[in-house]
Amino acid sequence: MAKQLLGKDVAAAMNEESRTRAAALAGQGVRPKLAIIRCGAGEDDISYEKSAQRAAEAAGVALERFILPSSVRRQELFDLIHQINTDSSIHGCLILRPLPGELAAVQQEICSCLAPEKDVDCCTPAANAALFMGRGQGFPPCTAQACVEMLKHYGIPCRGRQAVVIGRSLVVGRPLAMLLLGLDATVTVCHSRTENMAEICRQADIIIGAAGVPGLITRDFVRPGQVLLDVSMNWDALRPNQRGGLGSFVGDAAFEKVEPIVAAISPVPGGVGQVTSAVLMRHVIQAAEGSLHGR
Amino acid sequence: MAKQLLGKDVAAAMNEESRTRAAALAGQGVRPKLAIIRCGAGEDDISYEKSAQRAAEAAGVALERFILPSSVRRQELFDLIHQINTDSSIHGCLILRPLPGELAAVQQEICSCLAPEKDVDCCTPAANAALFMGRGQGFPPCTAQACVEMLKHYGIPCRGRQAVVIGRSLVVGRPLAMLLLGLDATVTVCHSRTENMAEICRQADIIIGAAGVPGLITRDFVRPGQVLLDVSMNWDALRPNQRGGLGSFVGDAAFEKVEPIVAAISPVPGGVGQVTSAVLMRHVIQAAEGSLHGR
Repeated sequence: MAKQLLGKDVAAAMNEESRTRAAALAGQGVRPKLAIIRCGAGEDDISYEKSAQRAAEAAGVALERFILPSSVRRQELFDLIHQINTDSSIHGCLILRPLPGELAAVQQEICSCLAPEKDVDCCTPAANAALFMGRGQGFPPCTAQACVEMLKHYGIPCRGRQAVVIGRSLVVGRPLAMLLLGLDATVTVCHSRTENMAEICRQADIIIGAAGVPGLITRDFVRPGQVLLDVSMNWDALRPNQRGGLGSFVGDAAFEKVEPIVAAISPVPGGVGQVTSAVLMRHVIQAAEGSLHGR
Repeated sequence: MAKQLLGKDVAAAMNEESRTRAAALAGQGVRPKLAIIRCGAGEDDISYEKSAQRAAEAAGVALERFILPSSVRRQELFDLIHQINTDSSIHGCLILRPLPGELAAVQQEICSCLAPEKDVDCCTPAANAALFMGRGQGFPPCTAQACVEMLKHYGIPCRGRQAVVIGRSLVVGRPLAMLLLGLDATVTVCHSRTENMAEICRQADIIIGAAGVPGLITRDFVRPGQVLLDVSMNWDALRPNQRGGLGSFVGDAAFEKVEPIVAAISPVPGGVGQVTSAVLMRHVIQAAEGSLHGR
């Protein structure tokens, strides 16, 4: 039986710390506030928004939602971001991505307009440069940082150990590789073109599943003693859920197959995903603290 | 006997192509020009400058050198970079790094002032962001790109294969990891804190030595069939050189020990180092072409 790495414990500890910091800010007349921009009404976006709303309440962060139709014109979006940039009552801004429809093509251009100090989910080039270079200011993507928070909370050491990240996206794979390098792990990035993925994973001390492929991580990928963080949230319409119906999120791991082998594993749902919003709130608090010092 | 991956053949092919493109630019009234900023008279800087001078001649690129004392005031350096940014006859600018003495502390700030389109060696945050994100405009660091050019020239496939990069610097390790990921290699980054480095390297198809530790890559690190690119230029004052005297550069590989085992190896000197300047010139040509289209 592997140890279950539960996200809710990590999130609770983080939110408690955030609440203390938010209270200290309140004492200085600052109420940390997050703006969320949502274009359209995508299910994933609404689900993330709801989870952010819960975390905001838990962490003592105010939320302002800007909801636009998916048909919104580029210029309107640029104007809104400019307004948020200059609004000193807003400390962080989350643009829900990927942007829908035709906006997808200009997503990078739109994200680049956000003031770097308010970029709490690493969508600007400036924040990405800081992450890659390991210097300069910028917040890492919340999900990648959530993995690091999981490892820290559960006392899993990284220094000198082999971590394999499956996936090379800008949301998890690449940024997490940089964060793990910063923690002195030896880091391997695997992806859809990787040969011998099972063999590579078996040699790791820490495996991070961020491929978005349900059931990818099978018995062949693991050995006793390993830690497996499963980041992916793949929707499986036929899987029984905890409410007795059908439809549930599943990770990249074939959970029932690998759980009896590894030393520790994060479930899906209930793992890393629950920590992401807590990281987001901490970033907002940090941004608010930064705005105070910058005054 | 391993195949010797010689830099001069790669550089010659690249410079020939650059010359053709420079001639085409000349036909449109543009002479591609590189500015080099050197602060002080460090040996490494002067040696790189000389090699750039030779490559510039070979590639048909004009060179303008700005030589400042190592005691130069920050503001003078900022002013010079601003002047280069606004000088339309200069297409690329190389700031020789690391900056000496007290300037080292503000190096990042200074480099950030360079116009991104003239940043031919990836010293600005914008170019680093583009490299990390795999989108947007920017030139990768010349030495990292030189490794890719070596692999391409000698027909060494990367897709799906395991590449191990030893070193996590911003000059080679991290950027090369991104470039190799872009070529669909499975990439591992090792560094001074890595445990089992020999074992990890033995499993690779391609090993890249960029640690700056002479003799690090021993017999234990290699197996038949591997390709070894040795990027490091470590000065060994006691090593016999080709002119019959003492003092020579050596790489990270214990060359005599590993050369009989691997399939191909780049020597030091004579390997990757010779390609770096050719990459620099190609970047200048590309920047000049870009300026033409931007007009």
